[in-house]
Amino acid sequence: MELLGRSDTAVRFRDPQIEMAHGAGGKVSRRLIEGLIVPLLQNPALERLSDAALLDVNGSCVATTADAYVVKPLRFSGGSIGELSINGTVNDLAVSGARPLALMAAFILEAGLPGDDLRREVEAMAHAARRAGVVVVGGDTKVVEHGFADGMYVTTFGIGLVDPRVSLGADKVRAGDKLILSGPIGDHGITILLARGELDLEADLSSDTRPLTPFIDALIATAAPGLRWMRDPTRGGVATALNELVRECKLGVVLHEDAIPVRDEVRGACEILGLDPLHIANEGQFLAVVAPEYADAALAAIRRTPGGERSCFLGEIRSEPARTVVALTAYGGSRVVDMLVGDPLPRIC
Amino acid sequence: MELLGRSDTAVRFRDPQIEMAHGAGGKVSRRLIEGLIVPLLQNPALERLSDAALLDVNGSCVATTADAYVVKPLRFSGGSIGELSINGTVNDLAVSGARPLALMAAFILEAGLPGDDLRREVEAMAHAARRAGVVVVGGDTKVVEHGFADGMYVTTFGIGLVDPRVSLGADKVRAGDKLILSGPIGDHGITILLARGELDLEADLSSDTRPLTPFIDALIATAAPGLRWMRDPTRGGVATALNELVRECKLGVVLHEDAIPVRDEVRGACEILGLDPLHIANEGQFLAVVAPEYADAALAAIRRTPGGERSCFLGEIRSEPARTVVALTAYGGSRVVDMLVGDPLPRIC
Repeated sequence: MELLGRSDTAVRFRDPQIEMAHGAGGKVSRRLIEGLIVPLLQNPALERLSDAALLDVNGSCVATTADAYVVKPLRFSGGSIGELSINGTVNDLAVSGARPLALMAAFILEAGLPGDDLRREVEAMAHAARRAGVVVVGGDTKVVEHGFADGMYVTTFGIGLVDPRVSLGADKVRAGDKLILSGPIGDHGITILLARGELDLEADLSSDTRPLTPFIDALIATAAPGLRWMRDPTRGGVATALNELVRECKLGVVLHEDAIPVRDEVRGACEILGLDPLHIANEGQFLAVVAPEYADAALAAIRRTPGGERSCFLGEIRSEPARTVVALTAYGGSRVVDMLVGDPLPRIC
Repeated sequence: MELLGRSDTAVRFRDPQIEMAHGAGGKVSRRLIEGLIVPLLQNPALERLSDAALLDVNGSCVATTADAYVVKPLRFSGGSIGELSINGTVNDLAVSGARPLALMAAFILEAGLPGDDLRREVEAMAHAARRAGVVVVGGDTKVVEHGFADGMYVTTFGIGLVDPRVSLGADKVRAGDKLILSGPIGDHGITILLARGELDLEADLSSDTRPLTPFIDALIATAAPGLRWMRDPTRGGVATALNELVRECKLGVVLHEDAIPVRDEVRGACEILGLDPLHIANEGQFLAVVAPEYADAALAAIRRTPGGERSCFLGEIRSEPARTVVALTAYGGSRVVDMLVGDPLPRIC
């Protein structure tokens, strides 16, 4: 859910036509969203978070989120479009501190899609929904002629109740807070790239798609008062999520380069391709900014949760350099970690 | 929002591949939805209405709805995909007796879409949202390569608060209830057909796309205790909406053939094409079943609302013929009005 972001600097959309990079989640996407869509549709009366919009429903705080899935290919090691469409939306709610109440799913199907392929994806959705403990309560189905889609696209919408114990937002983040990452990065993006077979690479790698709710539940149970901000770094990766954070909180993030968990297969593929793992999409990881007095308990809670063993302290929030993400190496070097520019990996989710 | 319908008869999906008719909203769509999607995703614990799913949020009844828009062409007389994507979702909420709280919008954009076309559609969405008194609070933007979409597709999700004065459902409908239609039918579908230029026909006709909230507000204010069921007859037209009603309520509907409001241009085009106006899509009309003692007040309330002047009593609910929609002519003849079969007018919304 990234249509409406905060727009504290004037951005103008003057591009003559839509390019793939407008969908990549990085700087060019920002120009489209903040330069065109937000100014026209913006509703300043509502508080906006990056991963879900919050609504007041007769005194209850409800989070809503929407995501379109156009991943190519439809199936890949460890997951498929159906599974992503559930987990991705569940995760947007989870990192908003919301427990999913219900999902809806809208399908755009291409004429000629084999019935078995559709069945497989609806089964994957049902399986993922059961695993995440959510229900799909409705939706829509449209069909376009052959040649006007790519098998199928799925858009899911989620609604959840925000846990009253948490109060999240970039404005809650303070210098000295700790940054936690839930596990190895880049698995999803590189898996998709390999599944396309465009590279002469093979690796024993799977997408990390999974529901984040067990981790968020553990975090809230253990460290709710210390939780400041959470995000699932999907398109644009950890680098883009953190750059959005520093832009909103006006502080800086310092990463420990050596602490970044990256599998050898991902690191190898990134080196060959000239990509930074921090820019690669994830579908089962999250970032959390936690007050220092809760940091150890929070990390322990994630590590105790199955699948959270490789979670780590990735860095800290500092007042300087403001609005900047910097990575420090063990040798004392440093580099600025920028947002994703362009679209090296299109249609990743 | 038609993914999950009631499934009181066993339907099986065995089609080898997806065809255009699977998206037309008629019998073939029903086979896909009730034979494949509902059995896999169904959640029997939740009450399901046809136009929106209802959720309990800490004691408040919340309606949610999802619709994908793939209309071709993107613009047509009287509207555009952007306008439809707002009005259609607002209307799904309205006929559920819900006041829209917020919408979300997810875009799938085709690389190469002119920036000005996108700007025009986002402006149309903003205009329609203002007109309907709703806000778009978030969404998503994805881009696919040129050749994998058709300019742009928009999926909108709506969330609304159900008016506590109404209690709608096919199970509330009784023999003797009156059926009201808000105005002339078929304008939208025939307008789209003409806009494609595939027919050597010209007619001074515009889509009826509009928000139904003013009509529903007037109905609720005047006749809330008598309101039994409402529906906006989009894909598949009035005939399909009423066939879904009789299937659910297990009663019959008798239509007065001569009472059906159809503009001459629509009637003429339908005659040439061999189509029944009752099967043609509408985007600004609704059907309401009202208890007889509230029927006159309800019709008067709609007629008093600007744009409701041509609303009428379209027919009645009868116990026989059960599960059937019949049209009676002035000459004493009768015909069974069936659901739409196949897809004479693809990508109408």
